[in-house]
Amino acid sequence: MQAVAANWGNDREVPSELAINLATVREQFGLKEAVEACAALGIRSLGFLTDQMRAVGLPEAVRIAEDNGVRVTGLARGGIFPAALPEGRAQAISDTKRAVDEAAALGAECLIILAGGLPAGTRDLAFAREMVCEGLFAVHQYALLSGIPLALEPLHPMYAADRACLNTLEQALDICDLLGEGTGIAFDTYHTWWDPKLEEQIVRAGKRRLLAYHVSDWLVPTRHLLFDRGMMGDGVIDFCRMRSLLSGMGYEGSHEVEIFSSEWWSRPGELVLRTCLERFIAHCT
Amino acid sequence: MQAVAANWGNDREVPSELAINLATVREQFGLKEAVEACAALGIRSLGFLTDQMRAVGLPEAVRIAEDNGVRVTGLARGGIFPAALPEGRAQAISDTKRAVDEAAALGAECLIILAGGLPAGTRDLAFAREMVCEGLFAVHQYALLSGIPLALEPLHPMYAADRACLNTLEQALDICDLLGEGTGIAFDTYHTWWDPKLEEQIVRAGKRRLLAYHVSDWLVPTRHLLFDRGMMGDGVIDFCRMRSLLSGMGYEGSHEVEIFSSEWWSRPGELVLRTCLERFIAHCT
Repeated sequence: MQAVAANWGNDREVPSELAINLATVREQFGLKEAVEACAALGIRSLGFLTDQMRAVGLPEAVRIAEDNGVRVTGLARGGIFPAALPEGRAQAISDTKRAVDEAAALGAECLIILAGGLPAGTRDLAFAREMVCEGLFAVHQYALLSGIPLALEPLHPMYAADRACLNTLEQALDICDLLGEGTGIAFDTYHTWWDPKLEEQIVRAGKRRLLAYHVSDWLVPTRHLLFDRGMMGDGVIDFCRMRSLLSGMGYEGSHEVEIFSSEWWSRPGELVLRTCLERFIAHCT
Repeated sequence: MQAVAANWGNDREVPSELAINLATVREQFGLKEAVEACAALGIRSLGFLTDQMRAVGLPEAVRIAEDNGVRVTGLARGGIFPAALPEGRAQAISDTKRAVDEAAALGAECLIILAGGLPAGTRDLAFAREMVCEGLFAVHQYALLSGIPLALEPLHPMYAADRACLNTLEQALDICDLLGEGTGIAFDTYHTWWDPKLEEQIVRAGKRRLLAYHVSDWLVPTRHLLFDRGMMGDGVIDFCRMRSLLSGMGYEGSHEVEIFSSEWWSRPGELVLRTCLERFIAHCT
């Protein structure tokens, strides 16, 4: 692992495309502290989390965002549609509509959709995927009328059972084709860097349907399936290739650092944020 | 985890399609002990490993196979083509040709090709994939003349960096399309169960190009990326669906249990083999 950032001079400019997803420091900070720590570094494009936001309540979250001049790039998450019982599926749809409302109140640019995995004790992946489509069709018009684009996020195939049965960009875009207007994808380097069809599918998505771009690195070895994502530069992902792909298609959205890592969660939040900034400049610009 | 098998009665019939890949008991047994333990249970279709075979030498391995009436379903492995230096790539090609010779001497039904990952210290996945194609083209005619089909095995995307940059059935079949005769795929449930295009690509492969079928289960949670594959029935893979897919296309090859697991490697080899047999009958037939 490379050195962490010791200092971030106030005379240096923060890249305008840089955003931070607050999951990156979710163990160190509540919403207010996280937003203020980012703002202190000049980072005001932030991805919010429903759990963290609900802990302070929506009105307070809106106030925190406004007070700090925050642009909310996205709200994560709606979805988790598959459930063994119909009541569970109805609940997921209702929760996702609530998240649409919250995203609208926050002025978020999109709602990140986490598909959900296999209902506990089941093995029918095709049925789980049908339930994801069913849920998306059930919330689509509501989101469209609220002006909140739904960003379908394919997760790494190693999460197919317990997090998300939406696992490739192609699969997500096939669903977007069916849903139409107001839907697109969240493209996360960690989840998709391995995909032989990455370039083809990002071009297929196009600027209009590329609703979010998240960066973190794939470590070798990866020691834990959930919480061992890497800081940019510590792993094997070629961020230059990713950036050139995005700029080639005219993408003008944010580049959002989102790192789920026990290692980074165990360090001081400010240090982590400064390191994100320095590493983003070194490896992703 | 379900109970392990206490006993396998000699009055019960071993399914004729069942094979055991010797990796399943590689920590308990050398080649001779493994083959004899399988034969004692009536299992004579076996997948061999180059390392284990070379430890006793090819002539002795051939003798062990013959003495026990073994049908060698496949030899794993050739490949691992990407390398930083041209010498490394030439060495991989030469090693793979040696494995072709060994497979021919053993009467193996195919040579399993493990692609290899990113050369250490590199990030160019597209180049690594080119090197895999280059290596395959360099050994293809040799294998064809030797009568040994090359079974390209796509590995789970979580191994893209350090094991194999061949990660989907579609990607493997695209390469088979280019190579033509004498090539096909090794379809492993653990590596591919999550793939939204699984059915489509297995049908595309067809009976002729489906050279090997390996089974093990995906555990939830999976605690280690390399050595935590599950015994059939302990995880979430729907083996009935897999079997019905295979029988629907007329597949008549072996169904080979291959489990990489620290947990199962820590148990007595005979117990593991009996458990494979019972679980195969319970979940995969």
